[in-house]
Amino acid sequence: MNLPSPYLLFIGNATDPLSIKMAKSAADWSPEMCVGEYSLPGCSVTTGLPAMTIEEGAQQGAKAFVLGFANSGGVLDPSLVASIITALEAGMDIINGLHDKLADIPEIAEKAQALGRRLIDIRHPTTKFKTGTGVKRPGKRLLTVGTDCSVGKMYTTLSLARGMQSQGIKATFRATGQSGILVAGEGVAVDCVVSDFISGSVEALCPANDDDHWDLIEGQGSLYHPAFAGVSLGLLHGSQPDALVICHALNRDHMRALPGRPLPSLEQVIEMNLTAARITNPDVKVIGVSVNTSSVSEDEALVYCNSVTEQLGLPCVDPIRHGVGALVEALE
Amino acid sequence: MNLPSPYLLFIGNATDPLSIKMAKSAADWSPEMCVGEYSLPGCSVTTGLPAMTIEEGAQQGAKAFVLGFANSGGVLDPSLVASIITALEAGMDIINGLHDKLADIPEIAEKAQALGRRLIDIRHPTTKFKTGTGVKRPGKRLLTVGTDCSVGKMYTTLSLARGMQSQGIKATFRATGQSGILVAGEGVAVDCVVSDFISGSVEALCPANDDDHWDLIEGQGSLYHPAFAGVSLGLLHGSQPDALVICHALNRDHMRALPGRPLPSLEQVIEMNLTAARITNPDVKVIGVSVNTSSVSEDEALVYCNSVTEQLGLPCVDPIRHGVGALVEALE
Repeated sequence: MNLPSPYLLFIGNATDPLSIKMAKSAADWSPEMCVGEYSLPGCSVTTGLPAMTIEEGAQQGAKAFVLGFANSGGVLDPSLVASIITALEAGMDIINGLHDKLADIPEIAEKAQALGRRLIDIRHPTTKFKTGTGVKRPGKRLLTVGTDCSVGKMYTTLSLARGMQSQGIKATFRATGQSGILVAGEGVAVDCVVSDFISGSVEALCPANDDDHWDLIEGQGSLYHPAFAGVSLGLLHGSQPDALVICHALNRDHMRALPGRPLPSLEQVIEMNLTAARITNPDVKVIGVSVNTSSVSEDEALVYCNSVTEQLGLPCVDPIRHGVGALVEALE
Repeated sequence: MNLPSPYLLFIGNATDPLSIKMAKSAADWSPEMCVGEYSLPGCSVTTGLPAMTIEEGAQQGAKAFVLGFANSGGVLDPSLVASIITALEAGMDIINGLHDKLADIPEIAEKAQALGRRLIDIRHPTTKFKTGTGVKRPGKRLLTVGTDCSVGKMYTTLSLARGMQSQGIKATFRATGQSGILVAGEGVAVDCVVSDFISGSVEALCPANDDDHWDLIEGQGSLYHPAFAGVSLGLLHGSQPDALVICHALNRDHMRALPGRPLPSLEQVIEMNLTAARITNPDVKVIGVSVNTSSVSEDEALVYCNSVTEQLGLPCVDPIRHGVGALVEALE
């Protein structure tokens, strides 16, 4: 993909920390590739990187203006166009992770062309995929699956990749969403693939490999999310996972963007994912649970994780607080 | 959509009867809209309509040349382009149900433009969909689901629609694939929708309706098909079905296009569909089974259907041989 960097992370007027996942991901996992963040009045969240104007970002050497917010449906708010024009004028290319293509917005397309800047829509696959086959291929694969959207599947997968690589285990992070692609520099945004090709695109993303190589595949959505379960199921079948890690966010009171809809239990998520995953890999196992415990104290987090281990007989960690050692151990 | 008709059905050099489903559907369900079929040397299947040349089709008044074959992945074989050019020259518009857009094939695009003909890609949605909500809406809905692809979901759904309409029940057939769209003149090909919007597109296809109105929604694929299960699941969640009809083809020895992969049992299909469907409609019920028994005699078909009824406690019919009366009765 050859993404230009360093990045200036644009978080618009966001007020929901989950909605700036793309910017936060780059700030957390590739801070050396980011000069800072740029926000608009009304914005009440932050990536933790220094705030600056577009001009200051350009002075710090930013080569790309990253649209670092995501919203259900991925539509670009017209009020954000002016900032994009300013970034183009300040010398930056634009990296976009929304469903809307920047080239379809005439004002942006014309300005980019006039100035010779690139508009990079990282969510849109440029490959022509085949339909899935379900045929077993060499190499080992782990997939993170969730009780809901935005519960830490990408963070868990990246933590596993870095943890395993540091132990000398052959492991590759496979990005399946715009945030992961921004961090990894490559991948396939499966939620933007034409639905006939979901599992086929994932078969292409993590093809046959060495017998002792692990593809660590970032999960998307949840089999229990009524908007996105189709994406999750195609991803599950195309991954043919040997190992599943169940991801959960503690104390979330409803499914993402669906007030009133409660989250499924860990047991339900395990059961439904195993039943579906056995269609392409009868030997699939759940090897552990990963929980985003940021809503509680360190002590409460430990109590919760221990209770999950007791209840399910599986290791349970918050990767940010406890590391992923227990999960890697379970994998071996 | 305003499709031009009557149709000349082009079946290429097909040898697999299932691969000309689109042409056969139009011939079976809308024969009054078809003048005949056109095939190439090597073709060993037929729609049952009179064979004719493109010139003869034009003389009989054909206004559209329908690419009546489908193949996994939906790619247009380059050897078929010459026939399309001839049909354009003979005065016809082209109706295409493949993933490939006709406008992307320069030879066809140029000829159509020069002659002022329409290239109609009925598989490609022209609507911009929202993501699904899972929120319950008024009206009743039935969805056909399958043990496999191409087992008779569309035929069952159309049979139910005509059967219910003839009894004065408010019922609308909702097409979700190119064949159904060709018959109904409208619909959404869900396997061509960007995967984030599968269930949202189905919510748009069968919106809130009268409390006593039935949307009869054509199913796609199978939750057990490793290539297409994501499409099937999004369709299931977006449909919010009150009633499911399980569709099956008797004596099929492997999943469509996947030699060696056996079909799931009816019990497995019922269990997995109910578990998933309850996410958007906890009151969903399986009301019957529909079997394509064309591989056996009338007597054997009856024996088989009776055995299914005994085994599952559900009405079981071949809609073509036995009608759908038993299913409509179960619905009431």
